[in-house]
Amino acid sequence: MEFKKEILPNGLSVIGEVNKCAKSAAVGFFVEAGARDETEQINGVSHFLEHMLFKGTEKLSPFAVNQAFDKTGAQYNASTSEENTVFYAAVLPEYLAEVTELWTGLMRPALRDEDFNIEKNVIKEEIAMYKDLPSFEVMDKCRSLHFDGRPCGNSVLGSSESIDNLTVEQMRDYFANRYAPNNMVLACTGNLDWDRICSIAVGCCGNWQKQNVSRKLEHYGGSKKKSRIERSNLAREHICLMSPSVSAQDQRRFAATLLSTIVGDDMGSRFFWELVDKALAETATMQFGAMDGTGVFSSYIRCSGENVPRVLETVNNVFRDLSRSGVADDELQKSKNKILSALVIKNELPMGRLVDLGFNWIYSEQYRTVEDDINAIRAVTVDDIHSLIGQFNPGDFTQLSIGPA
Amino acid sequence: MEFKKEILPNGLSVIGEVNKCAKSAAVGFFVEAGARDETEQINGVSHFLEHMLFKGTEKLSPFAVNQAFDKTGAQYNASTSEENTVFYAAVLPEYLAEVTELWTGLMRPALRDEDFNIEKNVIKEEIAMYKDLPSFEVMDKCRSLHFDGRPCGNSVLGSSESIDNLTVEQMRDYFANRYAPNNMVLACTGNLDWDRICSIAVGCCGNWQKQNVSRKLEHYGGSKKKSRIERSNLAREHICLMSPSVSAQDQRRFAATLLSTIVGDDMGSRFFWELVDKALAETATMQFGAMDGTGVFSSYIRCSGENVPRVLETVNNVFRDLSRSGVADDELQKSKNKILSALVIKNELPMGRLVDLGFNWIYSEQYRTVEDDINAIRAVTVDDIHSLIGQFNPGDFTQLSIGPA
Repeated sequence: MEFKKEILPNGLSVIGEVNKCAKSAAVGFFVEAGARDETEQINGVSHFLEHMLFKGTEKLSPFAVNQAFDKTGAQYNASTSEENTVFYAAVLPEYLAEVTELWTGLMRPALRDEDFNIEKNVIKEEIAMYKDLPSFEVMDKCRSLHFDGRPCGNSVLGSSESIDNLTVEQMRDYFANRYAPNNMVLACTGNLDWDRICSIAVGCCGNWQKQNVSRKLEHYGGSKKKSRIERSNLAREHICLMSPSVSAQDQRRFAATLLSTIVGDDMGSRFFWELVDKALAETATMQFGAMDGTGVFSSYIRCSGENVPRVLETVNNVFRDLSRSGVADDELQKSKNKILSALVIKNELPMGRLVDLGFNWIYSEQYRTVEDDINAIRAVTVDDIHSLIGQFNPGDFTQLSIGPA
Repeated sequence: MEFKKEILPNGLSVIGEVNKCAKSAAVGFFVEAGARDETEQINGVSHFLEHMLFKGTEKLSPFAVNQAFDKTGAQYNASTSEENTVFYAAVLPEYLAEVTELWTGLMRPALRDEDFNIEKNVIKEEIAMYKDLPSFEVMDKCRSLHFDGRPCGNSVLGSSESIDNLTVEQMRDYFANRYAPNNMVLACTGNLDWDRICSIAVGCCGNWQKQNVSRKLEHYGGSKKKSRIERSNLAREHICLMSPSVSAQDQRRFAATLLSTIVGDDMGSRFFWELVDKALAETATMQFGAMDGTGVFSSYIRCSGENVPRVLETVNNVFRDLSRSGVADDELQKSKNKILSALVIKNELPMGRLVDLGFNWIYSEQYRTVEDDINAIRAVTVDDIHSLIGQFNPGDFTQLSIGPA
């Protein structure tokens, strides 16, 4: 493993971790552009823009883009979150240069009026589709309730209205600013020729213009509001609980991950034994979401309407017991084993490794080896968990439910 | 990479591929027990039995099984198909011995009456749940229509009726026969201590009794029947087409995989450009399913009711054109790149590698390196594809549709 780094004069970070033992390679652009960077007027633009990048450039039609990826046999995709937009591909080493060049081209899209108008309908279909997924909707709306009007609570998809009203000029303005080279990272991992990737970056991205671009960081303790939405077509109650936690830059993020595994891993956690195994709920999980400058603990529970009072009582008991009696050494150890094996297995593939490499850089401009993360997880003590609970008590939450009338 | 093999006196095959570069390890039992090994009376027993193995042994309660996996941090699961039942786990190397011992224990389950009766309801819930998934139902029922009463067309889940009527004694009999050591493979991959795994196998499985167990192999050309099922609650038409193909033992399986990618990969295939890109269908894919002694090509298409005539005409045109004009060299090349990158990326992880290692052994008692498969794919010519189409014309199919009245 060898770490490589080159910052171009326009601010584009190019980073790589070379692993000559790997059989594949991966490359991706990490862009600091997510729903939290949007105003209400242009809500949904980051995700819409992600779609538009596949519509091609001045030189490439949408059809040609598809053909170009196909030729390399790449496994490729993109995703947009509240925080970032990521474009990635995994390929055989001999196609890495070709697919990297393709991505650099797509990062300067044509954003044609015609494609924009067609794709608007695709986005609106996607918004409609997710409305049928209460597990998604309850998380999305609970985030918004928790952040109570602050940008971190913005919905990634936007609304039918915001998408309807969005103009291609607004998208072009947003693009020009957020897709500035100094707001992006080009990362690669696996079996790769670093000099080749670097020279592609210099040749293809060297003339991109630096911009003044920033993101407002602020930690927020959450509204702690409770609310419920009725949907006549639903048979089950969907409950989301959200509370503040540490940021993606905070060393305590490893303790936060372990705590959420102890409480809400899908198997063998406190939620599992108290709610799922006892058949009070069908699903009950808790996750830690690290964000730029802040973070959240979020839980998702699905159960029958009649079980809601007992479920909420049990959840409150789990959190109360956590505050009072803390966690046991053996459950911390068990959670470490789960997190460590998931971490090692994920990072064993160049594609999985790319994600951690890119996010560590975009959040902290920091290179961390897998071993650094393993050691950080191993080092977490029961006292670390207790002090985290003391400061970020997951029992003090914002709550949103969606269920039948 | 080093291949290891040990056949115990009772017939249990223990195989391993040691990769000292890997950061994780995987282990699994591959059992030649699937729906095709069932009679009508006990249909669904293989899948039900897979569930029962997690209920523990004479020494381990269901709770203790869960705790034991949790302790190792394993990513573990099992699956049952028409052909096989597979149990697997991926772990950090230091937990491989522990999780292997755990699996060897679970392969001799208690099959308690009480657990059997409780789990029966879980299985029936699963059957009910899949009834709401027309994409699953159409494939399942089309397979049955294609094999026209032969065991290869048996449903994996069974029916509510067959599960209701199943007795625990029938399950115990089935278990005693199909889970004989000479009908199973214990495989491991990744960073592992072969001697340690071998001594666990000898110590824990050495006393299992060999049985007379066999499977009837016969190639069948398919019924070519056409049928349609109406469901008043459906909004879309779900179409499955099935035709015969080569077996898992046949060297032409690589050509069959490439052909199905050319015709029906989810992106950039003939189906994609003719059906999905033209908005005639929402999904249109074709797959090659290698089976023991036989095989199938199966296509799945979802579209609106009004588009059905044009969709079927287009599908027939695609297949007719394939028979008449064959495939082009560049589309074969493109498909090779896709299949090769998927193959390499999958096999890069010990868990992915385990699957190919185990199946090659269970089907052919053959060890193949990833390079063997890469070379076999690279060697396929346009003529190979044409000769395959000549013998197994995918245009001559059994057809089942499920859609609105």
